[in-house]
Parts: sequence; structure tokens; C-alpha cells
Amino acid sequence: MMLLRGGCVIRSKNAVALDSSGRDQLEASGWTKVENRDAVEKKFAFFDFNEAFGFMSRVALKAEVMCHHPEWLNVYNRVEITLSTHDIGGLSERDLKLAQFIDEAAQKN
Amino acid sequence: MMLLRGGCVIRSKNAVALDSSGRDQLEASGWTKVENRDAVEKKFAFFDFNEAFGFMSRVALKAEVMCHHPEWLNVYNRVEITLSTHDIGGLSERDLKLAQFIDEAAQKN
Amino acid sequence: MMLLRGGCVIRSKNAVALDSSGRDQLEASGWTKVENRDAVEKKFAFFDFNEAFGFMSRVALKAEVMCHHPEWLNVYNRVEITLSTHDIGGLSERDLKLAQFIDEAAQKN
Amino acid sequence: MMLLRGGCVIRSKNAVALDSSGRDQLEASGWTKVENRDAVEKKFAFFDFNEAFGFMSRVALKAEVMCHHPEWLNVYNRVEITLSTHDIGGLSERDLKLAQFIDEAAQKN
Repeated sequence: MMLLRGGCVIRSKNAVALDSSGRDQLEASGWTKVENRDAVEKKFAFFDFNEAFGFMSRVALKAEVMCHHPEWLNVYNRVEITLSTHDIGGLSERDLKLAQFIDEAAQKN
Repeated sequence: MMLLRGGCVIRSKNAVALDSSGRDQLEASGWTKVENRDAVEKKFAFFDFNEAFGFMSRVALKAEVMCHHPEWLNVYNRVEITLSTHDIGGLSERDLKLAQFIDEAAQKN
Repeated sequence: MMLLRGGCVIRSKNAVALDSSGRDQLEASGWTKVENRDAVEKKFAFFDFNEAFGFMSRVALKAEVMCHHPEWLNVYNRVEITLSTHDIGGLSERDLKLAQFIDEAAQKN
Repeated sequence: MMLLRGGCVIRSKNAVALDSSGRDQLEASGWTKVENRDAVEKKFAFFDFNEAFGFMSRVALKAEVMCHHPEWLNVYNRVEITLSTHDIGGLSERDLKLAQFIDEAAQKN
């Protein structure tokens, strides 16, 4: 299945709901359940806006390649990210994969 | 007065509360009052994430030069921006200036 | 064929050399042949660095999605871009596609 | 002296040529003299384009705040940066300051 959404393309098969092992991995790495939605969120604090936006640029590139985008809020050095998969209305493997990238990128910035 | 905040420097004098003329300008260009805070917000919709993030990159550079940063939320092609000036707990000339830049940049993307 | 190169993935089949019609399109839109290489280049001038880097952010996102990256040089408001396809040592359809995106993005910034 | 160049403002006094101590610092941190110009250059290699462009975004923000921009070339994971100060036609304290930021940002990405 191939869907076009402007600049990016979802090339993978339909998203599949994340299993409990995947959910445990998210929780173990500090992603917490959002109330009333099948989604997770995590708050990041950087040294300043420069670091925060460098991080956001990396996440933006990754999200666009995956065609799987975060809901994110930024205020100066803080970035709050919520992940969920629109197509299935809840967490999927894509969220775990993006979360893992985000955690790695955050450690480097 | 000069304050250091990581990567940027506030070089201008203390922020001054925005006068009614400035508030009218904001309102006329589509910025709406936030409830229970002296702040304004505006919602932008772009074609896709590529356009949205190109816009955000421009706003990021401008914000960093001004050392005056937005509170902003992005989900795919949508960007919601709230402006207020932390130092005075409300709208200042800086918000008007940043809003004008944001509106110009949004028109080009 | 699927090659992994860090953050992006080449999912398409092998690149195919660009035919004369595609080369004419590039030339007609201002991309000029590089000497001694099967590559094209174009020079862009923006109002300032802010515009130039906003443009570069958009091209970066597109390039990463295509897993096809430009050679580019930036000095303040100027961006010089060279396109060629490493895998085939010359121009391919990918270069035409990326050039078309670049031209569109440059017009908006 | 205050010069306007689009998005940024040079607020500091005239640039002053970099003294030998500053030049030694640049050399000790891997910045090499460019031939026939009073400028230095350094080549950076990152894991992939994602890391390279995250780094570039941070340098872009810093350069814009300083209103002192690099000449830089990017091809995939490689970034080659040349620093010099246009106003004085050679190396100044600004180049040393930007080089120090660049080196720090490169280590984190």
C-alpha cells in the first residue's frame, strides 16, 4: 500500500498495533501513557534553544523519511513529544521505532 | 541590560508592554487573544510537513536572533504558535515584531 | 534493491541514466552542465541567510526522503547546488526530480 | 557600529584581526590555513546526512545570532567549513568564537 501525503510516502504495509513487549520498551525508556488516548509522551530539556532545535531538525528528517510525524511542542529549551499512529488510532511499531531514534538523538544533543 | 541564555543574548532594553495600537495590529493580522494570559496565538496550515518545517526553520533563526522564542506546537502540516514575553509576563513589542516576521514567512511557504 | 545509508533508504530500483528529454528540462530550467562530470549545477540567491537556510531545510527533508542528496555550498544568502547520481556516476531521473523540487522551493523562499 | 543584513544584525564593534594566540588555538583544534587567503577550514564527517544536517542547523542558528556566517559545503555526511571575516578580509575573533562553537556541536553529533 502506498499513500502520498505531500513530501513523504508511506511505503510500508499497514501499521500494526504495538504489542505489550513494545509497550514495555517504551515505558522502560521513559515514554509515558497519555490519558484517554493510545499514545505516549516524553519531555526533553536541552541546554538552550540551539540544542533543542538541532535535535528537532534531526527528528524532523527522520520523521519525514518514515512518513510518521510527531505531535510536538517546543518552548525554548524544552520539547514535549507525543507519539501515536493516526492510521490505526493508537500505538504501532512505527512509534517505537521513532521513539528509539528520538531517544538516541536526544542523548547526543 | 544584557542577559545570557545559552546561545542567544537579549541585547535590547527591558521589554515594554505592547500598547493598544500594537495589539490592534496583531488582531488585524489574525492573532487571537489567549484566555487567561496576556498572549496571542495563531494557527498555520501548510501543504505538508516539508513546508511546515521549512517555515519553522526560518522562525527558529529569527527567534534566536531576537532571543525571543515562540511556544509552538506542530503536527504534520499544522503549526500553532503562541507569543508572549516571559520577562514582563505579557505581550511586548517583541511579540509584534516576531508575529510580523512569522506572517511574512508563512506567506512564502 | 535496498541499500541502507544511515538515516535513509533507497527503495527504488537502480537509477537509470537521464535521457535527453530530461536533460533538456534541466537545461531549460537553468541547470547548467558541470565540466568534466555528468552533473548539473545551479546558483540561487536569497534575500538573506534566514531565507537561504529555510530553503536548505526544505531541500534537506526532500533529499533525505529520496535518499538522494545534493552537493551544496552556502555562503550567507547564496546556495550553489550540484546534482548527480553517485550510483551511476552521472545524471539520473532522481536528479531531475530533486531539481524540480528545488526550483519550486526556491521560488517560495 | 550597527549594520543590517536582512535577518541579523552585527552589534559588536568592528572586527579585529585575530592575534597569533588565537591563530594557534585554531590550529591546535584542527583548523588549517587556506591557501592564498587569511582563512581557515576544517572537514567534518558524520554518521549520515541526518547527523550532518542536525549539526548544520545548530551552526546556522549560532551563525545567525553572531551575524557571522560560514562558507560551507555539504555532501551527504560530510561538511567542509571555511571561516573568515568579510569585513576585515581575514581572520578575526569572530572566527575563533564560531570555530569553538562548531567544534563543540560536532562532538555532540
